[in-house]
Amino acid sequence: MFELTDEYIHQLREAILDDNKQFVESRLEELLPQDIASVVPELEMAQARYIFNLLDQKHQALVIRELDENFRVEFLETFSAEEIANYLNLIDSDDAADILNEQENPEEIIEKITDEAKAKDLKDLLHYDDDVAGGLMQKELIRANLNWSVNKCVEEMREQAKRVGKLYSVYVVDDSDKLLGRVSVKKMLLSEEETMVSDIYDSEIISVDAFMKANEVAELMKKYDLVAVPVVNNYGKLLGRITIDDVVDVITEKAEIDMQVMSGITSPVEEEDSIWDLTRSRLPWLLVGLAGGILGAQFLGLFEGMLSKVTAMAFFIPLITATGGNVGIQSSSLIVQSLARDPNFNDFSFHRFGKGFLLAFINGLAIALVVGLVNLLLMNDLKLSMVVSVALFHVVIFSSFLGTITPLILHRFGVNPAVASGPFITTLNDLLGLGVYFIIAAALY
Amino acid sequence: MFELTDEYIHQLREAILDDNKQFVESRLEELLPQDIASVVPELEMAQARYIFNLLDQKHQALVIRELDENFRVEFLETFSAEEIANYLNLIDSDDAADILNEQENPEEIIEKITDEAKAKDLKDLLHYDDDVAGGLMQKELIRANLNWSVNKCVEEMREQAKRVGKLYSVYVVDDSDKLLGRVSVKKMLLSEEETMVSDIYDSEIISVDAFMKANEVAELMKKYDLVAVPVVNNYGKLLGRITIDDVVDVITEKAEIDMQVMSGITSPVEEEDSIWDLTRSRLPWLLVGLAGGILGAQFLGLFEGMLSKVTAMAFFIPLITATGGNVGIQSSSLIVQSLARDPNFNDFSFHRFGKGFLLAFINGLAIALVVGLVNLLLMNDLKLSMVVSVALFHVVIFSSFLGTITPLILHRFGVNPAVASGPFITTLNDLLGLGVYFIIAAALY
Repeated sequence: MFELTDEYIHQLREAILDDNKQFVESRLEELLPQDIASVVPELEMAQARYIFNLLDQKHQALVIRELDENFRVEFLETFSAEEIANYLNLIDSDDAADILNEQENPEEIIEKITDEAKAKDLKDLLHYDDDVAGGLMQKELIRANLNWSVNKCVEEMREQAKRVGKLYSVYVVDDSDKLLGRVSVKKMLLSEEETMVSDIYDSEIISVDAFMKANEVAELMKKYDLVAVPVVNNYGKLLGRITIDDVVDVITEKAEIDMQVMSGITSPVEEEDSIWDLTRSRLPWLLVGLAGGILGAQFLGLFEGMLSKVTAMAFFIPLITATGGNVGIQSSSLIVQSLARDPNFNDFSFHRFGKGFLLAFINGLAIALVVGLVNLLLMNDLKLSMVVSVALFHVVIFSSFLGTITPLILHRFGVNPAVASGPFITTLNDLLGLGVYFIIAAALY
Repeated sequence: MFELTDEYIHQLREAILDDNKQFVESRLEELLPQDIASVVPELEMAQARYIFNLLDQKHQALVIRELDENFRVEFLETFSAEEIANYLNLIDSDDAADILNEQENPEEIIEKITDEAKAKDLKDLLHYDDDVAGGLMQKELIRANLNWSVNKCVEEMREQAKRVGKLYSVYVVDDSDKLLGRVSVKKMLLSEEETMVSDIYDSEIISVDAFMKANEVAELMKKYDLVAVPVVNNYGKLLGRITIDDVVDVITEKAEIDMQVMSGITSPVEEEDSIWDLTRSRLPWLLVGLAGGILGAQFLGLFEGMLSKVTAMAFFIPLITATGGNVGIQSSSLIVQSLARDPNFNDFSFHRFGKGFLLAFINGLAIALVVGLVNLLLMNDLKLSMVVSVALFHVVIFSSFLGTITPLILHRFGVNPAVASGPFITTLNDLLGLGVYFIIAAALY
């Protein structure tokens, strides 16, 4: 497999500067479009163009398809609308539509596409947002009329297959293009030539509406092990198909976004993004954390008398808040995971809360005992040790409950529940922990 | 789409208790195996068997294939080795091998499989761990000899396709079964019958070694948009193929595990697991957090004099630790993400640390100013406000650095870097934050 190293880029750069076409071409021949697309952004723009010009047009189009979006926008600025149109003509409509959506002048580019059918397909696809089925689908697919024979079907497939990237199944439609079912390529091969499509097609077909959410499409294809799913409109008319590779990207992206949300990053960013974007994505939750911290300081101010009498109470503030935070996030992440697997799962069940309580009870007891023993040994202060242990026990129970219920509530209100596994729950738990600690102390001192 | 509801289960249960076969059968006819597999675990074991007995053997096998692993183990205990063997004979070898691996007596079951080729395939597959390519691969694939004609090839495909679940491409081998390349089904359809396989096959084929890590296989298939990849041994002999649906599961599982690791859960668990498993997966990091908290208490003990003089200093402990934790996790999660995308990325680059520093500088300054102003307004204590702000500024810088370097170091030592986005970094940052706060206070007071 190809591995991009600094030495590799260095060698390539030198060869380009020396105008050593032979060396560069021999390097490029070893690479797949995906590899070239990972090399190109590491070079200066002029060097990238140099490499690009050594490829034939089909390869150029494939490399453009694979480029990182940010780099692609910049790179394509050096091409005319007509040149871009020619590239789009060479790749599948879903990828072409994605590229068009990044451009400032998509209509102008579409006008320059010579293949009229392709231009029309792309115009259609531009209507869909990229988080719905229509935004993932491609127009290229193989359709067969219900009344064809297998022989006629295979002939048509040969013709249509020239336009279609990957062949999975043949979609069966009626005369008005309404989706009726499918025939797998395998079944087509196993059937006699005179068989009618209507005799062998499978009418129990899973299809999705063009406006179904991309995440739901991904869950559906994963659950039913589909490599492709047809997309229909309200009237059941066949519009296109979604292939598994696009759905793999959706799944990966969803996981990355959840991870960022859990880490308190508000908008999807990458390390490569600008300082300004990175700051903007980080500051909001930091400010929420600050507000929580200032509120906490105000709260502690109410107990100034107690703190100045028993200074040692302050020593355990970090222990209390950290334990609350850790327990809360552990609890919430399992709920977030269950919700990700099945957004309709029976959420507020008694069983769930009962089990959560038992778990918190055991963990809380274990923690209270361990810390109590250690504190007694280290401090020889029975009263403070007791206050800390009793507080920890309650903090574990409350944080666990808060960690369970917060993602469920957020989910009910349509907010990504992963938010509840990040700074939000930590901030809440800090305040909760401090409250429990000082109220128990006030009761025992 | 099918949606599992409490009412649905309730109705079904009633019908089973009334022995209303007709109703239950009409319900089952509407469902796909994946749906039945989600219904069955909601019922009592005897009710599950009742439903199961209404299905034909092929459907039974498909439902078993789709069952949740924990439930499946329990469910299959009520079947004989011979019955299980018959089911395994009806599903693809990769799924069959997964089920065998869950059983206590896999060899006994294999012996009862009547299809000798299948039994041999399964014996082979049992040798591989489930985190390598061999553990994901299936033996079913279509192979063509280099010297065949397209006509002969299509004939053979028809024969072989009976055993193969999904048809993607035809793998081309020489007489000793060495993998030479592939022909797509599409190309096969587009070629004349007399064409030789050797004239149309694509020799630039991506294959993986049977011992390649599952995660790497997933990255590879994702990067190159592959729906199937052939698996070979050291000598290039074709062993099997891995299909995209298995890789989608690997990607999802990796994301779930990373999320759990980030949440301080040590071993992969689900909400449904036993209290004991859940406790065991949670306690370790909670104890690490406790150790950190106790260490923190000891550290604060060193500043008892200062704390009893300036009680208000204690008020800001939660603010300091929370900010350190939030910043640290934000920084580490972006590194974890970059590492997940490309495990070989140029990690300790000057550019990365420079940018991270600039970002931390801006965030730190913003935070210090905001908190400083608010504190001045609320407390009217210039000195303490300054101490808190200066400390926060430094905490942001240090936590950001720690959050950047910790996952990189863990990755170098072969530990999942996601560990660094959880309680580990929070604990470190709590201690770091306290240190910075009190050292600055000691300098300024």
